[in-house]
Amino acid sequence: MSEVPSHFADRLFEAIAEKGSPVCVGLDPVYAKLPAELRSPAATLEDEVTAIGAFCEQVIGLVAPYVPAVKPQIACFERYGSPGLALYYQVVALAQDMGLIVIGDVKRGDIGSTAEAYADAHLGTLASENEIWTWAPDAVTVNGYFGVDGTEPFVRSCRNNGAGLFVLVRTSNPGGAAIQDFQGADGKKFFVHMAEQVAALGDGEGLVGQSGYSCVGAVVGATYPQEARLLRQVMPRQIFLVPGYGAQGATAADCAAAFDADGRGAIVNASRSVLYAFAGGPNRSWTKAVKQAAQRFAADIVAALGG
Amino acid sequence: MSEVPSHFADRLFEAIAEKGSPVCVGLDPVYAKLPAELRSPAATLEDEVTAIGAFCEQVIGLVAPYVPAVKPQIACFERYGSPGLALYYQVVALAQDMGLIVIGDVKRGDIGSTAEAYADAHLGTLASENEIWTWAPDAVTVNGYFGVDGTEPFVRSCRNNGAGLFVLVRTSNPGGAAIQDFQGADGKKFFVHMAEQVAALGDGEGLVGQSGYSCVGAVVGATYPQEARLLRQVMPRQIFLVPGYGAQGATAADCAAAFDADGRGAIVNASRSVLYAFAGGPNRSWTKAVKQAAQRFAADIVAALGG
Repeated sequence: MSEVPSHFADRLFEAIAEKGSPVCVGLDPVYAKLPAELRSPAATLEDEVTAIGAFCEQVIGLVAPYVPAVKPQIACFERYGSPGLALYYQVVALAQDMGLIVIGDVKRGDIGSTAEAYADAHLGTLASENEIWTWAPDAVTVNGYFGVDGTEPFVRSCRNNGAGLFVLVRTSNPGGAAIQDFQGADGKKFFVHMAEQVAALGDGEGLVGQSGYSCVGAVVGATYPQEARLLRQVMPRQIFLVPGYGAQGATAADCAAAFDADGRGAIVNASRSVLYAFAGGPNRSWTKAVKQAAQRFAADIVAALGG
Repeated sequence: MSEVPSHFADRLFEAIAEKGSPVCVGLDPVYAKLPAELRSPAATLEDEVTAIGAFCEQVIGLVAPYVPAVKPQIACFERYGSPGLALYYQVVALAQDMGLIVIGDVKRGDIGSTAEAYADAHLGTLASENEIWTWAPDAVTVNGYFGVDGTEPFVRSCRNNGAGLFVLVRTSNPGGAAIQDFQGADGKKFFVHMAEQVAALGDGEGLVGQSGYSCVGAVVGATYPQEARLLRQVMPRQIFLVPGYGAQGATAADCAAAFDADGRGAIVNASRSVLYAFAGGPNRSWTKAVKQAAQRFAADIVAALGG
């Protein structure tokens, strides 16, 4: 990050313009799904961590020409405890060194005093009197269940470090509806209420960039395109991070609902459909398969936006 | 954990009976708040991690005679990245070695495939073909925003490993109300809807122990005692993990609302009011202050339950 950090939304839109596609590849590495040549029947857990690191490094290099951003899923790293977390931060740094925007998919959330520690861990620089460790991704996903005092420490990191947030509003998974579709007294569903809270949070002083978009964005699953259209109105200044394309069943046309009238304001994520594009296919190079999948994914979204 | 793990609720009630108090000390270590003799102006971040480890070890020894459980707050460790996470798991193991029940306060939550990785990380044993790492606390806190497919992998760990869950229902912080009090069409608030989902989840086959309580519990803040009474009815088989006592303003009488008619079914947590009991007080031994605070906290809750 530069010494005077630019606004997250502005930085993201610049990166999108440069690559010509508003997409993001999720890095959800699972050892058992890695290409055969990276696995070994004698692998220890340390070996698994090493193989996952090698895979992520290659994937980042393969997709970087086509996508402006990657989204490492911290759970896949955290699963390996301390060495896994070390690798997560290495992957973040590596992707940033390749010029990519990095969205840490951490979905943290807690009461204010604890959220401060999470904001330090995931968006901050950690400083003692005598030392600084820097390792922050450009943005993270956050769970808003605790309300404003739970998100405020993350917003502070946005102001101080030019970071971005994506607060969970409508998730892409089947079970989400039983919670998020809870019907309100005024006919409004719960996720719309959450969206209103996120919109209010994101309109805070100094949070809206030159692009007209806030550094506080929202996670809005592509699997519910009609709801995405409604949410686009409720959150006009929120960038939508849109999961659900590919392995989760949403099409590029579904994803288009998350964008504004100018085809801006959202970034679509695909994880498994790109990462494991080689699986079950003809016996060809896995690197070629991943590269092509990233290229096609980007082109598919651009086409759906009429580009 | 033993080879045939016992049911979490049964194990917890046994530990509560042994210590004579249904309380838990939260381990939320913050370097700047540690006793002066554990800090140094020349400390590096590694030194901070070491000091936090020494503090936690001493605190665990000090409170163990009075409390059946501790609740390490992972954010305070995660703040230090990979070495911090290593310390978190050391603290978990250390407290278990001292015979304490350990509730990992991790508040993780995600879609099913990702929740599996989190369940591995926080409740599982991680196994490759050739190796096993074991490090699980007895229970963890979970964010239920993703619904059933997001909690199912954690429930599986409960079945397989005798672990427990506490799903966030009503949080103790001031900002929670704006989200969780959302008024439903049938006059029901959102957190009651969440409670119903948790109750249904916890009634799953094989999840209710000999005590009549499920291994799927709920986080219910003590700062809203009237709501706790209502939630006790909605979730008759859920153990309540009750934050909010002490530093967050709830009294022992407020906490009593979370218990059933027999004075069972809940465990009250205090973090800062015990951990930092030495702060600002007369110049006496910090260890004595922490020990007395734990003892008083336990006695205070027992008294409020009429014990």
